Amino acid sequence: MNGAESLLQTLLQGGIDTCFMNPGTSEIHFVDALERAPKMRGIPCLFEGVASGAADGYARMTGKPASTLLHLGPGLSNALANLHNACRARVPLINIVGDHATFHRSYETPLAADIEALARPYSAWLRTCRSAADVGRDCAEAIAAARTGLGRIATLILPADAAWGDGGMVGSTLQPAASPLPDETQIAACANVLARRGRVALVLGASLASGAALTVAGRVAAATGAKLLCPFAFTRMERGAARPPVERIAYVTEQAIAQLKDFESLVLVGAPPPVSFFGHPDKPSVLTSGQTEVLTLAGAQEDCASALSALATLVGAEKYQPSFQKSERPPLPRGEITIAGLAQAVGALLPEDAVVVDESITSGRGMLSATAGAPAHDWLVNTGGSIGVGLPLAVGAAIACPQRPVLCLEADGSAMYTPQALWTAARENLNITTVIFANRAYAILKAELASAAANPGNRSLDLLEIGRPDIDWVSLAGSVGVPGCRVSSLEEFANALNRGLENDGPGLIEVPL
Amino acid sequence: MNGAESLLQTLLQGGIDTCFMNPGTSEIHFVDALERAPKMRGIPCLFEGVASGAADGYARMTGKPASTLLHLGPGLSNALANLHNACRARVPLINIVGDHATFHRSYETPLAADIEALARPYSAWLRTCRSAADVGRDCAEAIAAARTGLGRIATLILPADAAWGDGGMVGSTLQPAASPLPDETQIAACANVLARRGRVALVLGASLASGAALTVAGRVAAATGAKLLCPFAFTRMERGAARPPVERIAYVTEQAIAQLKDFESLVLVGAPPPVSFFGHPDKPSVLTSGQTEVLTLAGAQEDCASALSALATLVGAEKYQPSFQKSERPPLPRGEITIAGLAQAVGALLPEDAVVVDESITSGRGMLSATAGAPAHDWLVNTGGSIGVGLPLAVGAAIACPQRPVLCLEADGSAMYTPQALWTAARENLNITTVIFANRAYAILKAELASAAANPGNRSLDLLEIGRPDIDWVSLAGSVGVPGCRVSSLEEFANALNRGLENDGPGLIEVPL
Repeated sequence: MNGAESLLQTLLQGGIDTCFMNPGTSEIHFVDALERAPKMRGIPCLFEGVASGAADGYARMTGKPASTLLHLGPGLSNALANLHNACRARVPLINIVGDHATFHRSYETPLAADIEALARPYSAWLRTCRSAADVGRDCAEAIAAARTGLGRIATLILPADAAWGDGGMVGSTLQPAASPLPDETQIAACANVLARRGRVALVLGASLASGAALTVAGRVAAATGAKLLCPFAFTRMERGAARPPVERIAYVTEQAIAQLKDFESLVLVGAPPPVSFFGHPDKPSVLTSGQTEVLTLAGAQEDCASALSALATLVGAEKYQPSFQKSERPPLPRGEITIAGLAQAVGALLPEDAVVVDESITSGRGMLSATAGAPAHDWLVNTGGSIGVGLPLAVGAAIACPQRPVLCLEADGSAMYTPQALWTAARENLNITTVIFANRAYAILKAELASAAANPGNRSLDLLEIGRPDIDWVSLAGSVGVPGCRVSSLEEFANALNRGLENDGPGLIEVPL
Repeated sequence: MNGAESLLQTLLQGGIDTCFMNPGTSEIHFVDALERAPKMRGIPCLFEGVASGAADGYARMTGKPASTLLHLGPGLSNALANLHNACRARVPLINIVGDHATFHRSYETPLAADIEALARPYSAWLRTCRSAADVGRDCAEAIAAARTGLGRIATLILPADAAWGDGGMVGSTLQPAASPLPDETQIAACANVLARRGRVALVLGASLASGAALTVAGRVAAATGAKLLCPFAFTRMERGAARPPVERIAYVTEQAIAQLKDFESLVLVGAPPPVSFFGHPDKPSVLTSGQTEVLTLAGAQEDCASALSALATLVGAEKYQPSFQKSERPPLPRGEITIAGLAQAVGALLPEDAVVVDESITSGRGMLSATAGAPAHDWLVNTGGSIGVGLPLAVGAAIACPQRPVLCLEADGSAMYTPQALWTAARENLNITTVIFANRAYAILKAELASAAANPGNRSLDLLEIGRPDIDWVSLAGSVGVPGCRVSSLEEFANALNRGLENDGPGLIEVPL
């Protein structure tokens, strides 16, 4: 057994059976070993940012890590922007990064790079294998590290001779380290605040607005009258009819301040204290005022689920059922395309069990409220502010949930970062309907420029336009095998959306704005 | 004057008037300041890898730095793969990376990142501005650092409040530090070896196969009978009729060993000792045998040009004229498309003064020999092995040399890394003819797999195919405003190539293989 074979067997034994990959020469023995590991699904990506973003989406929907396969420093570099997002999402993820053979690393070659230095900023666990005999054990440690707590990024650097060398051994599966439970007094302090039944909100970070954590939080809310909030950048929200409603903290500083100002207390569960996305000249960074006490139930590195359960016990929430969002949909809109009408159409048509990936930026601001009472579904957003994660997230979510329709709401500027994801969607025949909001601009930046400069000039504004030439999204999608259409009314949009969500396989709808 | 204004004025005063940019909110004051700096040309890029690759191409053709404008850690991350290539090319380049306002950096926000850690691996000079008052001086230092020696990457991190803050001052232009001249005995040793008139080659690294250095090397060759070689990964070669011929060291290990084995001595000028691109199980890394003595005239960090001149004096080369490549072109080929025929067509039609960007990988291996005697032209290749640099390099070269036709020879797998460059080519109406060699595969990896595995399996091979769906390059180019055509014979290719090279503006030719 060579090192690459031991790596694949260790991954499979650890429950990791999906690899988003873009290999090169230094990873060719891994590719060869895949032939003899039929349970590992290798998914080709034509750019590494697709691989890392897809691994993030996969982890958000399964709760377990996928692996990437990346080609030395440059392959890792191309993956970094979406690893930044994945790091903020606190998902488990395992990068396998090939490197030169150990005997070749000391030479000045074109691809020589300090891979560890490049990996370190986004890797909670990082190691370079020394030899084939170490690969299995190293990989087992990487898996345990990735599965620690809410989820972490582990990066394993695999020199080519550690991959091709004999003496590989499957690594024994290791238990992830337990996350520490927060101090009891901290939990009790939160319980006391909640027991007062004042204006209190629980702020659910990372993926805590989904799964068992959401149910427990919903019981606490029902027992204490607390509201459930989540940061603007959340990992995964289970929402819609018959789910406890969670309100997202607004992006726009003034709106967020208004949203938070009447709370006497905020209880943070794996969430950072609310701060604005960017700092601005005359605006505060911190979104809460002195009137609002901010308590931490559990930090993201602590055992948030157990802390929530302990809190529920202290406030006597077990006997409560969460208050559920009632089922309601807006009527199907008609007529000219408007931002509000598009949101209404999505709200009217979103099917049960859909996964929505939302990187619609300014064009999608009405989407969450229009879909609040739609049938139960999942909502994923950009967690790190690095645009270009939407299309890859949709790929990963569709691989993770082949039976569920994936709706990707995508801004044109963001989509152009990782259009290669559409090819993987076609290659794997993924059930993804992508809606491109084509406003032909970095519209959010035009708003920022308007607030930074009294009279924004034409030279500056022109640099924020991404039209001239306008991108033809139907042609672009078609060029990589994804059928598309362009709509010019809300009726056409609704029809196209329905068709897309009902069809298997990928499709794209361009919405000129 | 705010910090951003002082930055732009300092750049312009230092001779830097081109900025390849993808700004975000934290860079909005830079965008605003561009309004009042009409001599600075801002070129929008829809992905940061286009910006860094274009800045590399610009520097290769002008010898001076362009600047990039990048959005925090993620924007820089997306630029890194082509910064890797630029670092290996030893070109001057200045990154301006926006960051959060200093008062906002301590908060846990989605975009918070250790930008310095991300920049360090590829930055010879790196600094974070402390305040608006420091920006001009910091920028002047960045320019001097970038212009040191053959060229370096300087990265200036600009917090948003240093950009918008008052008190900016234009930084005084600084002299780059002089590169050290190699020890005289080292130069004398090389001269002695050359004076023996044995089988000796000068190996010209980085961009030393162009400009004055090439002429001096050509005189030395004429005086001593030495041959001129360059590494496989070279920055810029001036070649064709009436230029001293320089032979590229082969990519394939066995071919390179055969090419070098009869030399008694190699004299390295800013080039590393010849080693294979990758290490392989049963192949040597070092391409020269014990029979070949390898001497260094000057390392890349030393003053290579002066060392070459000193060498020329010692061997009495001033009175020699370089031997020139004679003018010759292959005849126009006819019939079915073949790799050899495509190279022949390029050789037959390449116009005088063309700039060729060659990232054709396996499909272009005959190009250099077929064009050896074409009218004088420049040739740029991938210097760091990070694919996806070709289309951006072409953008940078075309911005640098608006009067010259740019021919971009591009593999389909590599082109899919940075297709966004085509949009910038359309937006700026750049004179670039892109030829896509569409073999629908990572063909080089299929060859590597064949040598790694006795019987490569279908699962493995399938992961190296980038067809199914085939990418329709004509549609893809058209979707971003670049007119394209697909050719099915060498006659059609020749006609399309001629049209493309004669027309202003961008065009694309898809060559199915």
